[in-house]
Amino acid sequence: MKPGMTEFELIDLLRQRAPGSERLRTGIGDDAAISVPGGATATTVDAVVDGVHFRSQTSTPEQIAQKAIATALSDLAAMAAQPGEIYVSAGLVRGSDDEFLERLVRGLARSADRYGAALAGGDTVASPVLFLSITAVGHAPAERDFVSRSGAGPGEPVAVTGRIGGARAGLWLLEHGERRPAGIDQTAWRELADRQLAPEPQVEAGAALGRAGASAMIDVSDGLVADLGHLARASGVGIEIEASRLPLAAGVGPVADAAGIDPVVFALGSGEEYELAAALPEPSLEGAAAAVGECGSGLTVIGRTASGPAVVEVSRDGRPLPPVPGHDHLA
Amino acid sequence: MKPGMTEFELIDLLRQRAPGSERLRTGIGDDAAISVPGGATATTVDAVVDGVHFRSQTSTPEQIAQKAIATALSDLAAMAAQPGEIYVSAGLVRGSDDEFLERLVRGLARSADRYGAALAGGDTVASPVLFLSITAVGHAPAERDFVSRSGAGPGEPVAVTGRIGGARAGLWLLEHGERRPAGIDQTAWRELADRQLAPEPQVEAGAALGRAGASAMIDVSDGLVADLGHLARASGVGIEIEASRLPLAAGVGPVADAAGIDPVVFALGSGEEYELAAALPEPSLEGAAAAVGECGSGLTVIGRTASGPAVVEVSRDGRPLPPVPGHDHLA
Repeated sequence: MKPGMTEFELIDLLRQRAPGSERLRTGIGDDAAISVPGGATATTVDAVVDGVHFRSQTSTPEQIAQKAIATALSDLAAMAAQPGEIYVSAGLVRGSDDEFLERLVRGLARSADRYGAALAGGDTVASPVLFLSITAVGHAPAERDFVSRSGAGPGEPVAVTGRIGGARAGLWLLEHGERRPAGIDQTAWRELADRQLAPEPQVEAGAALGRAGASAMIDVSDGLVADLGHLARASGVGIEIEASRLPLAAGVGPVADAAGIDPVVFALGSGEEYELAAALPEPSLEGAAAAVGECGSGLTVIGRTASGPAVVEVSRDGRPLPPVPGHDHLA
Repeated sequence: MKPGMTEFELIDLLRQRAPGSERLRTGIGDDAAISVPGGATATTVDAVVDGVHFRSQTSTPEQIAQKAIATALSDLAAMAAQPGEIYVSAGLVRGSDDEFLERLVRGLARSADRYGAALAGGDTVASPVLFLSITAVGHAPAERDFVSRSGAGPGEPVAVTGRIGGARAGLWLLEHGERRPAGIDQTAWRELADRQLAPEPQVEAGAALGRAGASAMIDVSDGLVADLGHLARASGVGIEIEASRLPLAAGVGPVADAAGIDPVVFALGSGEEYELAAALPEPSLEGAAAAVGECGSGLTVIGRTASGPAVVEVSRDGRPLPPVPGHDHLA
């Protein structure tokens, strides 16, 4: 490839690499992409910015692409939606390395394809800072509707997929590169860093929870307590969490100790986890756990919804924990 | 409003102001927006960046909002699509003035509403530079399909809406603030600057051209010759333009003279015009001109498609003009 890719060369490369879909009638190359949805669509927009959500000096282009796609698809997962079309808006720094841009484009195509999404269109603009804004459109399977944040009733178990705290632990390790806490070997370091650099959206687990009858669902992007707060307010229920039940990711204990924070508090405030938190009617719990297990993840009950004020209360062994601060992306 | 709006306060403000629509079942406030399209959708993504597409020091927040919405809706206009839902991804600089942010949000809502679009969702992130990435979803009216770039046949008239060159003239005036060319009074200066700062997407004219039977259409964002080149390649036809027919915007002559560029060449290379260029079968021309006239604009035939190589040739009074450089947004 000749040095100094133009906008049109980049778009051509994207067009060559872009996975398509049956719903997509016209992809990249006209004024707009044409698709034919079968029914209702769920649409979300998420942006990642160099120096805020990733660092182009330490992330590979493939990791940046994966994180951008993951943040958007995680919202669709939380709706139990099937990924449909992805649109990429890319702010690219003038004079960027061609190899970097090519790997970024290939990475976007590969990450979209991995979750069954078509890369349907986009825009590239010059920008003093690298950013990627991803629009993802999801579709509801024929047999059921999307799962919103607002459908939980009182007295339902509240569960979370996978293990939490890893994304924050990874961030801490990346920010303290020279310092590896006791109990964190090279493999654990890499795994925690990957949680932060190239997260996985829980697309299959979200669909499984939808099929199993989840009444309300949200992805953990602001921190578990903050996100359950959104779900509680939308549903008009309280949520009581038992801290000792939290499934902590491997390595969170040593990193939280090194950071001087209680591991449970550390995990409850960990943003960018992209695990799912859901309320489920009691009878659907067993089937949901089995279905999430088949996706290669796990489902852990951590508390219960309650009638009463729409707040999240965390207790440990019967004693209330102080409020856990959320993660305001503009703070 | 208290100083230092958080992400959640901004989203709340957006939710209060956001126009809705019949198709939009759930707007801002869940993990994703849910809409129910009636048929095929046309989706486009466009970003504007401070210092590249606007300058936050000289544009008002309302102008920035209008330009962002206009760039996206112009693509839908070029498909003859009805604006449906708009999603905003905003990169906001930490510590931005609350009044600025509030006016930006109100401006986005007002600009969307002006063209009948619902503000359906979005994301706000911290960024070292202000950017807005707009995703716009359009719908095809029941009685006809979208108009693509690729439907033109040979021997069809090629026409452009409105008058061109004004956006580039406005940019030149803004960049030479101290220098007002002879023939440009304060009113003309303001009008040309507005073309650049707060362009108008030709949504109604696009729909009218679609109803009238346009065979192919594109919006003028890269410059008329460059954009007709995209249309020519997509349709597999040549395009011959007669330069003397070009409808130049008022004031382009004096500004081009001051810039030392032939006014016709100046206008042919003017990007960000957001006028529409279309090929139309001869019999539909009269009706199309009348329909565009009813939208308060005009339609001018500037040339004709031809069989042969898919290139754009511009001649003036029978003599070919040298190639006009396009506007590469990454150059």
